[in-house]
Amino acid sequence: MKYCSSCGHSVEHRVPEGDNRHRYVCPNCDTIHYQNPRIVAGTVPVWEGKILLCRRAIEPRYGYWTLPAGFMENSETTNEAAARETWEEALAEVSIEGLYTIIHVPHIDQVHMFYRATLTNGSFGAGEESLESQLFSIDEIPWDELSFPTVKRTLEYFIADQKESHFPLHVSDIRFQPSRDKR
Amino acid sequence: MKYCSSCGHSVEHRVPEGDNRHRYVCPNCDTIHYQNPRIVAGTVPVWEGKILLCRRAIEPRYGYWTLPAGFMENSETTNEAAARETWEEALAEVSIEGLYTIIHVPHIDQVHMFYRATLTNGSFGAGEESLESQLFSIDEIPWDELSFPTVKRTLEYFIADQKESHFPLHVSDIRFQPSRDKR
Repeated sequence: MKYCSSCGHSVEHRVPEGDNRHRYVCPNCDTIHYQNPRIVAGTVPVWEGKILLCRRAIEPRYGYWTLPAGFMENSETTNEAAARETWEEALAEVSIEGLYTIIHVPHIDQVHMFYRATLTNGSFGAGEESLESQLFSIDEIPWDELSFPTVKRTLEYFIADQKESHFPLHVSDIRFQPSRDKR
Repeated sequence: MKYCSSCGHSVEHRVPEGDNRHRYVCPNCDTIHYQNPRIVAGTVPVWEGKILLCRRAIEPRYGYWTLPAGFMENSETTNEAAARETWEEALAEVSIEGLYTIIHVPHIDQVHMFYRATLTNGSFGAGEESLESQLFSIDEIPWDELSFPTVKRTLEYFIADQKESHFPLHVSDIRFQPSRDKR
């Protein structure tokens, strides 16, 4: 952020009076431009015991497999966002079940939330951001070609919980690991 | 939003190519300025069977009672945000227990998340944004002087669940109600 979105003046990056964090502040109109984490909402879409994954047609992680998920939009709920993203990326209509994972990714200011979901009619395809979609049985999941750590962790929880037929909410964090991220 | 925060040019409000929603778009540097919901994180802070509430020293709802809560900041997790807000508003150190309510408020682009929490040593006070803090037993809660619908709903769940000593996660929505909001 270089310019004030309210008046167009150059902003300063400083701690405002009465605050304890650096913010972008406009010295002309005094607007403080707060920046806050974003929610990524998605699903674990299931059909006849298999899990639907999409292969990404966009960066980052072009060509890698993902659970359908994306940034929550204004004016919607997290479950609505999860169902919308599943439609947009996998052309799959789902009924949303319980909230399943909340994974904080604080070094990129994101909170990922995955719902369990069931395809309503078994139909799916490739949305604009996907190369293809495919149903995977548990022993077919392409672990070495998954897109993001939150997808991998959600699938790991799901497979472990499926053995017990019990799917509690899992709240966890993924922290920045320099040695891992440099590879 | 009137000006591009990247280059300072006037922005347009239109549907970008390949998108289906109106966004603020810069015709000079082509930056699309996405806007996304914000998370409000807070706690239900308990000490010796009583619930700690704060009386707001800021607008909106100056003078009304609230559970400690506020906007999640970048670089933190929702539980860290909830504990930080409890410290800032009620000067109370808490140990965070389970995530308890997620309440979508889509007409103001917010997701409220409350954790159950226990005061670590019974100490509390009034932070800069509070006039005072006070422990309330269940039959003392000032229902007619509560600040926000998400606070009221979270307290209602808590009191009902306390009778069963079972506190499952509650995910719900609060929708815009014109007749109610006009009062």
